[in-house]
Amino acid sequence: MTTFPGLLEACRLIKSGALSPQTLLSRASDRADAIEPSLKAFVVRATSASITQQVKPGPLCGIPVGVKDIIATVDLPTTNGSPIYKGVTPERDASIITRIRALGGVIFGKTVTTEFAWRSPGPTTNPWSSEHTPGGSSSGSAAAVAAGIVPLALGSQTQGSIIRPAAFCGVVGLKASYGATPKEGVHPLSGSLDHIGFFTRSVDDAALALSLLKNRDAIEDESIVLDDFSFDVESGVPALPRPRIALLSTPHDHLLSSEQSAVLAECAECLRSGGATLESLTLPDAFWAGLTNMNLIMECEGAVAHKNHFEHHPNMLGEHIRDLVTKGRAHSAVAYIEARDRQKALRKAVASYFSRFDAFLTAPATGEAPKGLSWTGDPIFCALWSFLGTPSITLPFKRSSLGLPLGIQLVGNYREDEKLLRVSKFVESLVPQ
Amino acid sequence: MTTFPGLLEACRLIKSGALSPQTLLSRASDRADAIEPSLKAFVVRATSASITQQVKPGPLCGIPVGVKDIIATVDLPTTNGSPIYKGVTPERDASIITRIRALGGVIFGKTVTTEFAWRSPGPTTNPWSSEHTPGGSSSGSAAAVAAGIVPLALGSQTQGSIIRPAAFCGVVGLKASYGATPKEGVHPLSGSLDHIGFFTRSVDDAALALSLLKNRDAIEDESIVLDDFSFDVESGVPALPRPRIALLSTPHDHLLSSEQSAVLAECAECLRSGGATLESLTLPDAFWAGLTNMNLIMECEGAVAHKNHFEHHPNMLGEHIRDLVTKGRAHSAVAYIEARDRQKALRKAVASYFSRFDAFLTAPATGEAPKGLSWTGDPIFCALWSFLGTPSITLPFKRSSLGLPLGIQLVGNYREDEKLLRVSKFVESLVPQ
Repeated sequence: MTTFPGLLEACRLIKSGALSPQTLLSRASDRADAIEPSLKAFVVRATSASITQQVKPGPLCGIPVGVKDIIATVDLPTTNGSPIYKGVTPERDASIITRIRALGGVIFGKTVTTEFAWRSPGPTTNPWSSEHTPGGSSSGSAAAVAAGIVPLALGSQTQGSIIRPAAFCGVVGLKASYGATPKEGVHPLSGSLDHIGFFTRSVDDAALALSLLKNRDAIEDESIVLDDFSFDVESGVPALPRPRIALLSTPHDHLLSSEQSAVLAECAECLRSGGATLESLTLPDAFWAGLTNMNLIMECEGAVAHKNHFEHHPNMLGEHIRDLVTKGRAHSAVAYIEARDRQKALRKAVASYFSRFDAFLTAPATGEAPKGLSWTGDPIFCALWSFLGTPSITLPFKRSSLGLPLGIQLVGNYREDEKLLRVSKFVESLVPQ
Repeated sequence: MTTFPGLLEACRLIKSGALSPQTLLSRASDRADAIEPSLKAFVVRATSASITQQVKPGPLCGIPVGVKDIIATVDLPTTNGSPIYKGVTPERDASIITRIRALGGVIFGKTVTTEFAWRSPGPTTNPWSSEHTPGGSSSGSAAAVAAGIVPLALGSQTQGSIIRPAAFCGVVGLKASYGATPKEGVHPLSGSLDHIGFFTRSVDDAALALSLLKNRDAIEDESIVLDDFSFDVESGVPALPRPRIALLSTPHDHLLSSEQSAVLAECAECLRSGGATLESLTLPDAFWAGLTNMNLIMECEGAVAHKNHFEHHPNMLGEHIRDLVTKGRAHSAVAYIEARDRQKALRKAVASYFSRFDAFLTAPATGEAPKGLSWTGDPIFCALWSFLGTPSITLPFKRSSLGLPLGIQLVGNYREDEKLLRVSKFVESLVPQ
């Protein structure tokens, strides 16, 4: 859609001096000026003076980054997609923002999120068709990368808020292992399920983002420190040759559009031809039954996250958040603890499959982006991986008959994010151009 | 009380060949035969055939270990102090038992616990006076080490179940940082508060136990891997010279016996004379108010841990467990999550004090062991450290006018267990003989 360079390429060009940060940033601003009236990916953008001031040396020197508007920034308001926070600017950057700034990255603007990263959509349109949703809740981040405004945007996923919009917009979306990326300063929806992740244009770009922005320590609750990647700035992350791929059946496969089903079959065939081993896999029902526990956890933790909003600003909350809180308040502590215990047990249980497989192949969504902006689509093909905390990634594969992107999703073992990226690099090389 | 060697000395003697495992184990059995009729520290002991079979090379070769009877062992029943589990032998060892066996240690017997490590006491008496409680819930482990039967026993602490009985019995009790020791296979009382720890006869013994038995990986929920200790088998853990000690005031100090207060004052004076810096410290009320959250967490998690017992064996449960479950079932998920959030916030907040202090000095209990066996004493001086997950240790200091032990408690920073042990080594060297 654009010749704007991807993240890794932009970093290389700037490092070599072939591209100046100013030129890259001007292009980003020009592109946004041209397309934002219809795209509406940004809630607010940094001024050109601020952009110039932010340029600093570092591995992300001069890279414009889109930031989902639930992530605190001291120089731009953080509205959380809610009128309650209209014009409110936090006093501290989120820790991932501090890190981006320290690496020389430029906070280019805050991207549209659904209300508190839950269901009520914002105004963003799909860059491939303004009549279609970009997906959500990280709507603006997906759209801004797809439209070639920024090479990197931050999103969050509690159910399917990175993978789904990335697939609908035709970009790479990476949700790293639960706890692998810093959440401090990000408005929570459900602490046991919230993940911070990345929208980029390639697997290498996603790998670069994760290698730079993953946790350096485990001081946050349930946070982990992934091993450092073997990552070469010239060749990116090395593809895993002959990966063992599980072609996953799910109880939701009847929801897939025929085009999405065909994409999965075609992708499997490409992988087989490319040297991968493919085998069908059906997970025990207990995994899918676990999604009931996931909903309960989300309701309970959502009720805590939005307690003050619910009690002090009920009229400024959308019906979906009110409904979440109301449901969450009705649950007992025992039911919540049992749901969390079930989550932990299933998180352990899924690991056993990854001795046989390097990754699962599944759909990122039911199909292309639904028409209309009132619904961001069904997260059902993403939810289990959020519940289990396993890393997952979506790659664009081809376009639908309407010209909208259709992607595939790969799921890896908890903490084995690098392996998932290496499998993804293999898969990416086989995507038909 | 006995010339039975402590853990480190026994390991040294066996390693050097000066003592055979068989001699050590015979002495332990003889001692138990002589004293158990009145002490009642053990629910069950391994047969002499089993003891002989268990001897294997390793750093704990031939060391008899007492195991609290909520910790699963495949060769001895694990009753959890409850008639529900009478005669029940688990199919798998708890992971800490697997580790002890791998190190050559001998599971000498299962020690008496209160019912499910909660309030209803077992028959164990205090080795210093059979009319007094040994404390609980790790009653038998404290008594067995104090009586010189075993040089090492395992206990657990949710409120005050290691520190208090260790103080009442005049031995060293160590509760390591939350998550630093393996809990898999131990009957839970309250997962967010349960700690596994050690009864020994000296700080070096406790340091050796922790260095050998701490987690090697962080695969359990919320588990951590402590750094390896600088531990020399000849000199033990090195004392921290001139430690900075906070003399902690608590809102519960009016509960201290005059003798226990005098012990704290005398200990402070010894430390000052020995080169330590002492400063009074009062923690903000928020910490003590947090104990309300602790009770709520314990009730909720206890209700889950005992759900099946409560539903299927209500008549075999003591009133204290029934009461715990009944209270826990009445709490909402929101209240539980808020209590856990408060716990996490206070866990972070307490760390700031440890930039000024190497350890806090406080009482391990209100005073000497109370008379009678129907109550194991007040855990109030231990509870906060269980709630915060900070490592704590008790050392015997002197005896009361009745001849019962009186101890002191030292509290360190989360994850800084080695420093706490080094401070404790310093303190131990100043205890009046």
